[in-house]
Amino acid sequence: MIALDKQQANSQDRLKSIDWQPIVRQFEAIVGAKNVVRTREELLAYECDGLTSYKQQPAVVVLPRTTEEVSEIVKVCDRFALPFLARGSGTGLSGGALPLENSVLIVTALMKRILKVDLENQRVVVQPGVINNWVTQAVSGAGFYYAPDPSSQIICSVGGNVAENSGGVHCLKYGVTTNHVLGLKLVLPDGAIVDVGGEIAEMPGYDLTGIFVGSEGTLGIATEITLRILKAAESIHVLLADFENVEAAGATVSGVIGAGIIPGGMEIMDNMSINAVEDTLATGCYPRDAAAILLIEIDGSELEVAENAKRVESICLQNGARNVTTATEVEQRLKLWKGRKAAFAAMGKLSPDYYVQDGVIPRTKLPYVLKEMEALSQKYGYPIANVFHAGDGNLHPLILYNNSIPGALEKVEALGSEILKLCVRVGGSISGEHGIGADKRCYMPEMFSPSDLETMIWVRSCFDPKGIANPTKIFPTPRTCGEAANSQAIHQLDSQFKQIERF
Amino acid sequence: MIALDKQQANSQDRLKSIDWQPIVRQFEAIVGAKNVVRTREELLAYECDGLTSYKQQPAVVVLPRTTEEVSEIVKVCDRFALPFLARGSGTGLSGGALPLENSVLIVTALMKRILKVDLENQRVVVQPGVINNWVTQAVSGAGFYYAPDPSSQIICSVGGNVAENSGGVHCLKYGVTTNHVLGLKLVLPDGAIVDVGGEIAEMPGYDLTGIFVGSEGTLGIATEITLRILKAAESIHVLLADFENVEAAGATVSGVIGAGIIPGGMEIMDNMSINAVEDTLATGCYPRDAAAILLIEIDGSELEVAENAKRVESICLQNGARNVTTATEVEQRLKLWKGRKAAFAAMGKLSPDYYVQDGVIPRTKLPYVLKEMEALSQKYGYPIANVFHAGDGNLHPLILYNNSIPGALEKVEALGSEILKLCVRVGGSISGEHGIGADKRCYMPEMFSPSDLETMIWVRSCFDPKGIANPTKIFPTPRTCGEAANSQAIHQLDSQFKQIERF
Repeated sequence: MIALDKQQANSQDRLKSIDWQPIVRQFEAIVGAKNVVRTREELLAYECDGLTSYKQQPAVVVLPRTTEEVSEIVKVCDRFALPFLARGSGTGLSGGALPLENSVLIVTALMKRILKVDLENQRVVVQPGVINNWVTQAVSGAGFYYAPDPSSQIICSVGGNVAENSGGVHCLKYGVTTNHVLGLKLVLPDGAIVDVGGEIAEMPGYDLTGIFVGSEGTLGIATEITLRILKAAESIHVLLADFENVEAAGATVSGVIGAGIIPGGMEIMDNMSINAVEDTLATGCYPRDAAAILLIEIDGSELEVAENAKRVESICLQNGARNVTTATEVEQRLKLWKGRKAAFAAMGKLSPDYYVQDGVIPRTKLPYVLKEMEALSQKYGYPIANVFHAGDGNLHPLILYNNSIPGALEKVEALGSEILKLCVRVGGSISGEHGIGADKRCYMPEMFSPSDLETMIWVRSCFDPKGIANPTKIFPTPRTCGEAANSQAIHQLDSQFKQIERF
Repeated sequence: MIALDKQQANSQDRLKSIDWQPIVRQFEAIVGAKNVVRTREELLAYECDGLTSYKQQPAVVVLPRTTEEVSEIVKVCDRFALPFLARGSGTGLSGGALPLENSVLIVTALMKRILKVDLENQRVVVQPGVINNWVTQAVSGAGFYYAPDPSSQIICSVGGNVAENSGGVHCLKYGVTTNHVLGLKLVLPDGAIVDVGGEIAEMPGYDLTGIFVGSEGTLGIATEITLRILKAAESIHVLLADFENVEAAGATVSGVIGAGIIPGGMEIMDNMSINAVEDTLATGCYPRDAAAILLIEIDGSELEVAENAKRVESICLQNGARNVTTATEVEQRLKLWKGRKAAFAAMGKLSPDYYVQDGVIPRTKLPYVLKEMEALSQKYGYPIANVFHAGDGNLHPLILYNNSIPGALEKVEALGSEILKLCVRVGGSISGEHGIGADKRCYMPEMFSPSDLETMIWVRSCFDPKGIANPTKIFPTPRTCGEAANSQAIHQLDSQFKQIERF
C-alpha cells in the first residue's frame, strides 16, 4: 500500500481509451442496473456541486446502499486505476464533489439510514447520505440536537459535512464538524473497510478521525458516521442590533467576546445583504437603512441567558447600536434567523450571479479588512455584499456579477483572489468552512510552505498510493494552477506531483 | 520518503556493535560537549519516566536549545538509522519517554522559552520544555489561563502534554490537549522542519496538528507549540459532596450532566483515597468516613455560577449526599482541590508501591464497573483505591502492592489488564489521558481490528519510513507482546511488523 505501483501509473490518455462496458457491468452486479447511471442526460444532474462555475460529467454514477457495496465499487476502481469521488447532496461550495473527466462518481443518496440513536451516551450513528437536519429532528423530542448547522442544513448531507469539515452559525461556541465526529467507518482507496475513532472521545492511537474530517474525499469514503449530540439549551434569546456603520458592529463583536461571553452564534449582515433579504422574504425584521445588523444568539440556562442578554445589549448600545430588539420565543427567533439563512439565495434578486468567498481573519482585524474590501470592490467595479460569522472571523463576501458578460468571471475570480490574499496577510485563512476543493487549491501555497504541503501529500500517498481518490482536489499542481503567482512554490513540490498530477 | 529503504533496515545486532564515538562528536558539534550526556551515572536520571516499573538507559542524551539543533540531531539519527525519542519532564505514566537500548534521547530541558504571548488573539507560542503551569502564569495577570491541567501541571512539560494528549480535571468542560493546540513546528524523522496548523483554528488541508497530538513521539518532535488560551471565568465555586456509597456519587454525576450542566471539573475520590490524602496532608476537608466524595467545580459569570451551584447542590442531595459544602473564595477552593491533586502521591502512605491504571467507561456504566472492580480486587487480593475524572468517565484505579515481593508486579499487571478489558467490554477505552506508550501497546488489539491498526501503521511509515522515531511504542508486536491473548490478531499485522519490530 505504501509504494506507488508504477505499472498502475495512469493518464487521461489511458482513461480516454478505456472500455467502460465491462466496468459498468461490474458496478451493475454490485448495486443493480437501476442504480448505475450512464446516459448523458441523466449525468447532467451530477456535473457540478454548489460551485456552479465549474462543470464536468463523470463517466458513470453509482448509487450504493451499504458499506460493503461502496467497498466493492472502490475495489473495481482500484483494480482499473479509475479516479473516483463521493457526492452527498452536492451543495458544497468549493467543488469538492466536482467530477473529473472519466471518473466514477459514487452518490450516497441511497445511504440515508439513521443506524443508531443512543441518547444515554449522546451518540447518533448515520449513513453518509443522511441530511444534516434529520439528526436534530431524530433527537429533538428528547431534548438534544446536532450542533454544526451550515446554512444548507435542510438539504446538505452529513457525509458532505464530514468531507468538507462544515461549519455554521453555531460553530462559534460549539465548534465545526470535526468537533462532533467521534468515529467513522471508512472505505479506503483500495476498498478496505476500517474503523477509526469510536463511540467515545478518548480513543488511543493516532487521531485518524480528525485527519479524515475535512480531507475532501482524498483519503477514502466515510460510510458510517458516529456523531456527538448535545443537550438542547434550556433557554435561547436572539438579539438583533442595528448599526450606522459596519465597523461599530465589528467592535461590538470584539466587545462581547472580550467580556467573556461566547454566544451560540454572532453574525453580521451589511446593508446590501439586508436589502436583498427584505426584497425577497419581506421579513420586516431587518431595518433597510442600517449599515449593518448584528444577530446574536445567547443560549444556556434561563437565568444565565437573561443576564448575558442584558450584558450583550448594553455592549451593543455602548458601541453605538441604534436599536436592540430581543426575540425570546421560538417563532420570533426563527423569523430573525430566517433572513440570515436565506441571505445567499436572496442575492439572486440583486444580481444574475454571485461568487461567494470564504475567508477567515483574526476578529480584531475586521474593521481594517472591511475597508480594504471596499477599496477592492471599487477598484474592480463589482459590488460586494457581506454576510459573516463575525464571532469567529469567518467572512463570506458575495461578489455580484453577470456571468453572461464575457470576461466577468475571470475578473471576479481575480477580485476573490485578492480578498483571500488579504485574509492571509492579516494572519487568517483561505477557507473557514467551505473547503479547498477544486476552487482554492492554487491558494494553498499562500498558507503553506512547499515542505508543509509535501507532508500532507505524503499522508495522502500513504492512504492512496495510486492517487485515485478525488485526485486534483486540495493540492496545487503546475497543470491545474498554471503559471499562477505561486507557481514557483508549486514547482518545488515537483517530486510529489507525479502522483497527484496524473489525472 | 514513502518506500521503506531496505538497505537501511536495522536490528539490535547492528546497534550493539555501533561505534558511538563519531556520532557523539557530531552531537557535540551541534549542541556543545556539555549538552551531551554519556556516562552511566548521569544517564541514570533518564532511564525511566513516571512509569517506574520499566527501566532502560539510552546510549546518549542530547540537550538542544532550538528547532535547528533538534533538526541537526535528528538528521544524524536518520543518517545512522539510530532510534531516537524526545523527553520533556519525564512525568508520563505510560512509558512514552522510556528509552530504548542503544537509542538517542533528546531532552527538551533547555527549550523552556515562551516565544510569544498574543493576548488579543488568545494565543501563546512555547518551546516544548516549557512547564504546563507556566503558560497560565504568563497570562493570568491579564485574565487568561491555559485549560489542560494534568495533576503534574507544576512539573510536566507542554511538549510531553502534546505527545501524550494529556488531560486533567478541567478537560470535562474544556477538552484535552488536542483541543488547545492550534499549530506546531515539527522536526520530522528525517530532520525536515515543517509547520502544521497555524495561529488560527480554521486551517485548510489535512489536520496534521490533530494527528500529531497524542502520537507519542512516533511521528517526530514538536519544537514550537501554539496554544489557545481561555478567558478566566468571572466566578468559580467548588462543591464538595460526601456520600455513603460510591454508586450514589456516580448517579449524581449522571444527574448533573443530565440536567444540562457541564461543570469545569467533576471528580470522585473513594474512601481509601480520602484517607490516604488526609493521612498525608491533613486538609481536614475530606470526611474520613465517607464512602466517596464528589468535587464539582462550577465556573462562569457570577449569576450563572450561583444558580448552577444551587441546582447541583440539590441534585447531590436528591441522590443521597450527606453534606454539601461550597467554596467560593480562592484559598478555600485551592484547599479542596489540593487533596485531589496530591491523591496519587498520597498512596505512598498506604502502600510501598502502586500501579495506576487509566481507563475510560461510558458515564452510565460507572456503578456496574465499580462493582466489577471490587470483585477483581477481592479475586486478586490487592486493594484498589479509586480516583477519577467522573464527568468524562475517566477512571484512575490505583492498585496497591509491594514490588519487593517476587511475582507481585506480574499479578498486579494481570489485575490491571482485567480492568482495562472491563473498560473496553462496556464500550470504553484503554486510555483516557496517559497514552499507550510502552505500557499498553499489547491492549491495542482489544480496541482495534488488525486493519484499523494497520492503517495507523501506514501513517507512521509515511512519516517515518525507517521506523526510528520512538520505535516499539503504541503498536503491539509479536516480540513485545509475546504470546499474549491477542497475539493472533497481532500476528495478522505481520506484514507491517518488518518496520516496527526491528528495534
